[in-house]
Amino acid sequence: MKNDNFLRALLKQPVDHTPVWIMRQAGRYLPEYNATRKRAGSFLALAKSPELACEVTLQPLDRFPLDAAILFSDILTIPDAMGLGLYFAEGEGPKFERTVRTEDEVRRLPVADQDQLRYVFDAVSLIRRSLDGRVPLIGFSGSPFTLACYMIEGGGSDDFRTVKSMLYGRPDLLHAILEKNAQSVTAYLNAQVAAGAQAVMVFDTWGGALSDAAYREFSLAYAKKVFAGVTREAEGRTIPRIFFTKGGGLWLESMADCGADALGLDWTIDIGEARRRVGAKVALQGNMDPNALFGPPAAIEAEAKRILAAYGRGSGHVFNLGHGVSQFTDPDHVAALVEAVHRHGLGASR
Amino acid sequence: MKNDNFLRALLKQPVDHTPVWIMRQAGRYLPEYNATRKRAGSFLALAKSPELACEVTLQPLDRFPLDAAILFSDILTIPDAMGLGLYFAEGEGPKFERTVRTEDEVRRLPVADQDQLRYVFDAVSLIRRSLDGRVPLIGFSGSPFTLACYMIEGGGSDDFRTVKSMLYGRPDLLHAILEKNAQSVTAYLNAQVAAGAQAVMVFDTWGGALSDAAYREFSLAYAKKVFAGVTREAEGRTIPRIFFTKGGGLWLESMADCGADALGLDWTIDIGEARRRVGAKVALQGNMDPNALFGPPAAIEAEAKRILAAYGRGSGHVFNLGHGVSQFTDPDHVAALVEAVHRHGLGASR
Repeated sequence: MKNDNFLRALLKQPVDHTPVWIMRQAGRYLPEYNATRKRAGSFLALAKSPELACEVTLQPLDRFPLDAAILFSDILTIPDAMGLGLYFAEGEGPKFERTVRTEDEVRRLPVADQDQLRYVFDAVSLIRRSLDGRVPLIGFSGSPFTLACYMIEGGGSDDFRTVKSMLYGRPDLLHAILEKNAQSVTAYLNAQVAAGAQAVMVFDTWGGALSDAAYREFSLAYAKKVFAGVTREAEGRTIPRIFFTKGGGLWLESMADCGADALGLDWTIDIGEARRRVGAKVALQGNMDPNALFGPPAAIEAEAKRILAAYGRGSGHVFNLGHGVSQFTDPDHVAALVEAVHRHGLGASR
Repeated sequence: MKNDNFLRALLKQPVDHTPVWIMRQAGRYLPEYNATRKRAGSFLALAKSPELACEVTLQPLDRFPLDAAILFSDILTIPDAMGLGLYFAEGEGPKFERTVRTEDEVRRLPVADQDQLRYVFDAVSLIRRSLDGRVPLIGFSGSPFTLACYMIEGGGSDDFRTVKSMLYGRPDLLHAILEKNAQSVTAYLNAQVAAGAQAVMVFDTWGGALSDAAYREFSLAYAKKVFAGVTREAEGRTIPRIFFTKGGGLWLESMADCGADALGLDWTIDIGEARRRVGAKVALQGNMDPNALFGPPAAIEAEAKRILAAYGRGSGHVFNLGHGVSQFTDPDHVAALVEAVHRHGLGASR
């Protein structure tokens, strides 16, 4: 591999430079992405075509000297493969035709059939071949809890009222869903690794909506189950695991024990403080406010420098945003960020 | 006063029992509130009528043995008094006819004319007289930063894109707005105290959307300015101050130095852990997930008990939700919560 700084940073091994990639780096802020999406006809058609998924995965790498590629896909492929019928209503977020709420619906819910997810693994293989060793490829999944949120609500939610009603009223049903999700996510990540993913990331987008106690019981516990079952080595190399709970800054000490090699951080925490709290246990990935990219290039550079300095010296930092890049971002500002990280990070002149 | 446990708990003085009130306790989950609102014609007409605001403020106290009343009003009265034209579009949140974005708009923005807010102070006087010493009356305001969010965006926002663009691109403009907001909020709270408010609370609903560094510079610093200027004593009693940043759990140590007597906590933090972190500096208010009220009464009682036990013995805890009660809540579940707090809190049989 020509540039494996990303994999080494996740394992806290020495790096040539601080690696950087950007959540949602293949996305709507890029005109070339929008062109491919238009050609595909819909977001789902794009996500379900290995060729087109490969094409958009590589687009940001052709523009910016990023240190990792991430599979272009949706976090809701698993519930879709469980038969819930994923669709996107125009101008709205993802929706499911069927929800999982009653005792009967929970009992009938299958563990995801991995054959239904073949298009994802085909995309991984194709991207891996196309990358030809430029940078490592990240596979990913939504966390068992985050998937459950969509499966129970039937889409996004402001308040997760239906999820919380179940959590406080019928916790046994929620546990049953999470158990099936954890098995599905584990198998899904393992199939991605088998297809060529060189690191895996679990996105717990909604764990931060929970109370401290509920987070441990309903989100973190199932992330642990996933990591306990995920392939540790492939092609003679360790497969590093990243766990990201948006809004999880209060729980870092517990997250550091979940079996992940690195924790993703949103922008609400000082990364230096986070490093002190987790000690040598895990690497850290993050954590610039995506909306700092709306500032001018000089402000972006200053903010990147501040975060790099807050992390301090020594390996174990993968630079990233604290959440996905906004569709309204100027690609030149992303270029300014990547350049700033490489200019001011480890291995640079400083 | 017949029951001043709320005021004493905020000052960490001995209490007869753990006091409890509920954010947005006068609100849409109560049929009697909806009836009054219907009579008023609109939310703004209700908020701007001292008589009707008094009526709905007292409604939850007639149903539940709550330990405090809170002025019924809107957090956006100040920007409305600055001339921005507050209105509510049906089915949407609050909106402003005019926004504050350009250098010129910022320069022309006045400090709020407190004469335009007379209806609020009249409501405070009337509620105070009507309460007749049953429980203390809380006055409140939005924080300078939270007000700025609405003034700049022109309404609510998912991502505060316009605010963040200004924060990272033209921080001087944001500081100028915040300075005017801080002066306005200080005068507003002082007028509420003069009219009879016995405690004040500053709601920083959106401070949690900021990075650690930006929070300190753009939200906390201006809350400090407010508390430095707010009346400390009236009618021979200390006026306790509560500061609440939703999503502020990572910043408690700094918040504890902002001049508030108590900090509001959302439900993402363990209140026992919060107490250890702030030490003897401040009291704590919170912190049950509002959506735990969708569980059955037995689960609500268990959750209340868990939070009371996590805080532990000794004064300094005002029980509350971690955010406003949902409009979809069954009032009987609120009754179950209040009863549970009084049954299991301090001074009870335990």
